[in-house]
Amino acid sequence: MITRIDIGKPFNTGAASEDIAPSSIFKAELPDEIEMSHDAKTLTMALDKDDNVYGLGETVRGFNKRGFRYVSDNADNPDQHENRSSLYGSHNFVIVDGAKCLGIFVDYPAKVTFDIGFTRHDVMMISVEEADYKLYLITAEFTVGGSAVSEIIRQFRELIGPSYKAPYWAFGFHQSRWGYKNEDDIREVVRNYRENGYPLDAVYMDIDYMDDYKSFTLNEESFPNFTEFVEEMAGQGIHLLPNTDPGIKIEEGYDVYEEGRDNDYFCKDIDGEDFVVGVWPGRCCLTDFLNPAASKWFGHKYSFFINAGVDGFWNDMNEPALFYSDGTLNEVFERLPEFADHEMSLGELWEFEGMVRDLANNPEDYRSFYHNTPQGRVRHDRVHNLYGFYMTKSAAEAFKEIAPDKEMLIFSRSSYIGMHRYAGIWTGDNASKWSHIELMMHQLPGLNMCGFLYCGCDMGGFGDDVTEDLMMRYIQLCMFLPLMRNHSALGTRQQELYRFSMSPDYVKMLMIRYAMIPYLYKSYVDAIKYNKLMFTPLSIAYPLDKDARHVEDQLMVGESIMIAPIYQPNVAGRYVYLPEDMKLLKCRSNRDYTEEKLTKGHHFIRTALNEVLIFVRNDGFKMLDKEHFTTVKDTI
Amino acid sequence: MITRIDIGKPFNTGAASEDIAPSSIFKAELPDEIEMSHDAKTLTMALDKDDNVYGLGETVRGFNKRGFRYVSDNADNPDQHENRSSLYGSHNFVIVDGAKCLGIFVDYPAKVTFDIGFTRHDVMMISVEEADYKLYLITAEFTVGGSAVSEIIRQFRELIGPSYKAPYWAFGFHQSRWGYKNEDDIREVVRNYRENGYPLDAVYMDIDYMDDYKSFTLNEESFPNFTEFVEEMAGQGIHLLPNTDPGIKIEEGYDVYEEGRDNDYFCKDIDGEDFVVGVWPGRCCLTDFLNPAASKWFGHKYSFFINAGVDGFWNDMNEPALFYSDGTLNEVFERLPEFADHEMSLGELWEFEGMVRDLANNPEDYRSFYHNTPQGRVRHDRVHNLYGFYMTKSAAEAFKEIAPDKEMLIFSRSSYIGMHRYAGIWTGDNASKWSHIELMMHQLPGLNMCGFLYCGCDMGGFGDDVTEDLMMRYIQLCMFLPLMRNHSALGTRQQELYRFSMSPDYVKMLMIRYAMIPYLYKSYVDAIKYNKLMFTPLSIAYPLDKDARHVEDQLMVGESIMIAPIYQPNVAGRYVYLPEDMKLLKCRSNRDYTEEKLTKGHHFIRTALNEVLIFVRNDGFKMLDKEHFTTVKDTI
Repeated sequence: MITRIDIGKPFNTGAASEDIAPSSIFKAELPDEIEMSHDAKTLTMALDKDDNVYGLGETVRGFNKRGFRYVSDNADNPDQHENRSSLYGSHNFVIVDGAKCLGIFVDYPAKVTFDIGFTRHDVMMISVEEADYKLYLITAEFTVGGSAVSEIIRQFRELIGPSYKAPYWAFGFHQSRWGYKNEDDIREVVRNYRENGYPLDAVYMDIDYMDDYKSFTLNEESFPNFTEFVEEMAGQGIHLLPNTDPGIKIEEGYDVYEEGRDNDYFCKDIDGEDFVVGVWPGRCCLTDFLNPAASKWFGHKYSFFINAGVDGFWNDMNEPALFYSDGTLNEVFERLPEFADHEMSLGELWEFEGMVRDLANNPEDYRSFYHNTPQGRVRHDRVHNLYGFYMTKSAAEAFKEIAPDKEMLIFSRSSYIGMHRYAGIWTGDNASKWSHIELMMHQLPGLNMCGFLYCGCDMGGFGDDVTEDLMMRYIQLCMFLPLMRNHSALGTRQQELYRFSMSPDYVKMLMIRYAMIPYLYKSYVDAIKYNKLMFTPLSIAYPLDKDARHVEDQLMVGESIMIAPIYQPNVAGRYVYLPEDMKLLKCRSNRDYTEEKLTKGHHFIRTALNEVLIFVRNDGFKMLDKEHFTTVKDTI
Repeated sequence: MITRIDIGKPFNTGAASEDIAPSSIFKAELPDEIEMSHDAKTLTMALDKDDNVYGLGETVRGFNKRGFRYVSDNADNPDQHENRSSLYGSHNFVIVDGAKCLGIFVDYPAKVTFDIGFTRHDVMMISVEEADYKLYLITAEFTVGGSAVSEIIRQFRELIGPSYKAPYWAFGFHQSRWGYKNEDDIREVVRNYRENGYPLDAVYMDIDYMDDYKSFTLNEESFPNFTEFVEEMAGQGIHLLPNTDPGIKIEEGYDVYEEGRDNDYFCKDIDGEDFVVGVWPGRCCLTDFLNPAASKWFGHKYSFFINAGVDGFWNDMNEPALFYSDGTLNEVFERLPEFADHEMSLGELWEFEGMVRDLANNPEDYRSFYHNTPQGRVRHDRVHNLYGFYMTKSAAEAFKEIAPDKEMLIFSRSSYIGMHRYAGIWTGDNASKWSHIELMMHQLPGLNMCGFLYCGCDMGGFGDDVTEDLMMRYIQLCMFLPLMRNHSALGTRQQELYRFSMSPDYVKMLMIRYAMIPYLYKSYVDAIKYNKLMFTPLSIAYPLDKDARHVEDQLMVGESIMIAPIYQPNVAGRYVYLPEDMKLLKCRSNRDYTEEKLTKGHHFIRTALNEVLIFVRNDGFKMLDKEHFTTVKDTI
């Protein structure tokens, strides 16, 4: 059962696809276990020591979110360590799984703090900045053979509407790197993959492809015949995906800028002037996606690529990330003489250093510009978490008009619940860290709960230098994800798979991936169709099993398999809990694997670096028995 | 067998206590498996896929160091994540544990890079900046009932000399926080601990106690009657430990500064002028501990506190940490106008930001000052990793003259092998992170290998905000460490144990700690006496057991117990491998525990948050059966 309580004057975010009528009486519908503060800004709920709390999608730590304070506040921050309160997305949905189960969705597009056993281990506190939000409460009864948590998820997903469905080819292996500069760089990557026997379905074009980082342009020296190049790549089974940014370079003669300026499609400062920020192209204006006319205009710009044959995009920098604003930069330089003209105290030194450090993504900047929305003029910080969602909605809605018959792949870095109807996500700028394999495994069910089914992380890690064994373990998780993309940052070790001495073993892992695509795609489509998870933690899949309740490093993938990825270096195997009898496949390739029947219970499974573990229920899983795959087309 | 090979003109670091004659013929003694580059700067060795590599003391990642590139380069960097190449100490000793076992000690006080399966999974490369170092190679045969690795450790420890022995009282529980400002703050902490039934043996005085952060001073308003206060605290069983820093404030009339300046006891710039850096007191000179006269002078300054009754110290900031140097700061301010007078490109913006960010601990600064040593004038960067060692040696040598009959507690943040003869260490500015519990567990045997036996980490975490459950798990590891100190940073959540709702359970954990002190201290003293580890990984303790070889999250503590700390939130228990039959004690206090006999093999052990697991071999462990402890004296 879903109850909606409207507090104050909520901004209509578009998270829910069909509106549930709000309860007419304020507070009357709150269940006894939740206490609301007098100012309606804080909800407090006691937690039993055995309660698990699930949710929050793209956040740090475990799938059970207890023990930390998370803040929904979309941030371009690549340092995804366990104490990072905000990442790129805001997914304000939690489920308390205890003697009673309760789903809570706080539909509020500014900052929301979830203190889940942080201040006190036995208390959850949810607080918002202003008392203007929609609160949804979802309850379900436990039924034998079912699960209250799954039922709450089903109802929530029904509320927020059906998830975006990616094309089948999107389940192929994708290669990306910040630094591919021109057609030849891309040709070389494709050739190397092909020569080393890899399947490959897509190559990404990061910001380098643009003319001076201007959105919807191409550097004509690097990509002189783009339509022909798209065709050439398509001939090799390769889709090209350009990166798209929301900031528009201020430059006379640049048509996108001039149209935006002339039609008031950009975010404004308090005086109604275009707000100026620094992003990749230097000084920019930010497209105002909350203005329907601007949104429509921007979305149709994608036809620049679609007309050339492109059928996939990734929307980036849409938290929005700001390197600086004109305002803060000027302020810093105006204040510099204060520091320069005398011997600084340590306090002054740190103020100076802090001022410079805080140029990027400064909260004051987010409070300094405005959106022109059908619900009135709104200061950005009050709807901050919607920006990436609305940028991506703008694209997806335009795609239906530009190319109604084409299945497009699109995913975004920043997100809010509701965007799942339009696109997938990737989890932003992770790093070559073992802990980020574990993190992704924990995020998957939380993302699925909120409708984000087409998702993945940068395989191998975006930042830092990957090692051969770490890449192998990344592959052994990412091979099960809808989005399997190797992506890395400029300046890090080059990590195309063919560069490593373990390359022959990597090829075999990719053969397993491709052999599983029919299974994975069906599991994915079923998860959309039936509003369930594609990646299910054991605590939800086996709600009556006490031993399954705290297992966070194993996941059911679809109905028939369980994975237990390895996320530690230098191990000889790992512990696995089997919630029922299963068959274990130790796979070195899709044709080279050993089978073993294992009984319900705890096991230590010895395994080598070049083996991936797949646990099969009821013989419900078969890999394609084929010698070699080149693209997804081979798997149909 | 130990072989020493001298390359070039090594700086005599003092790491080895008695010198082994160098092999007369350059390179002739290198075993076949090691290849030396022509310039003698790089050693290369193939790794078998089953080789483990141990060592490197205070470094990130697992006890088996394979899969990363570590750099010995002492650094004040609190962000101790898995890809951090340098921490506070440099401990250049590794053991390859495979078909053959080999110990390698690179006695070189500047930067050493250990690429242990990073570039290639099957290759180890060790490289130095200049071909002036002593290379020690240690081999031992495996004997049934013994272990080649243990024997290599024994020989190495014999080479580097006996470890510092801390007084018995140092095994009590200690409380610290950056922010205790005066006598009353400390009194209040002690009173609260006592009133809540805690044992407590020491309180630390962080930088706040000083007069304007000047070393060897006291703020006379905050500590008006220090000798009386030391006595008052001693009456309550509390030792006071002041923090000591190597940077001396430049201030006319400050006797320590004037003496140092007049006697040339400070590090010099290239022109022979005192080199000026910024640290806590603002502009400072750095004591030149490599100058024996300066070292002796500084060491005797500790009598300022010792004469007041103090018997413990912690040496801090001795990497040395630099907030800036006069030179770099001036350069930044001179360059500012370049950036201010026009619209910056992104490249310029980042250059500007980087310049400001790099003010602290700038490598250029470390190349800009000199030590006056008996081995000649030496540029700092060439002996960088010795600074903390020599500061602490200066103190320890003086203690023997100032108070020859007093057992002093002393430990240091920065270190190099050799310092273990003079003092203990703590692992610097960790954080309230679950991963840092795991990290400490991994560092302990590596530190022990290098002679550092009195050691600990900041319990609860120095940076960030601790939670109740995290503190409980920190306690459950730190209760076994020689140094059990709760320490935290200004601005973080206050984390004295009595502040939390779980306080009564914390008290019980401390009762267990105190009940174990006789066992722990004996294990500690035996490890010193017999040149062995106090914390032994299963791979070393059970060299013939294949299942023990990769267990990194369990440790033997002394001869009779094994610990298996929990370092993940929200778990119902953990997996434990028993290399032999053992008795499990699930301890809620030293008098409230359940016993269970377990057989050799893998187990999932269910356990509650308020229970610590102790596995006992051969009935060889007894806790003191006493209702209550107030200080260590109760345990004798």
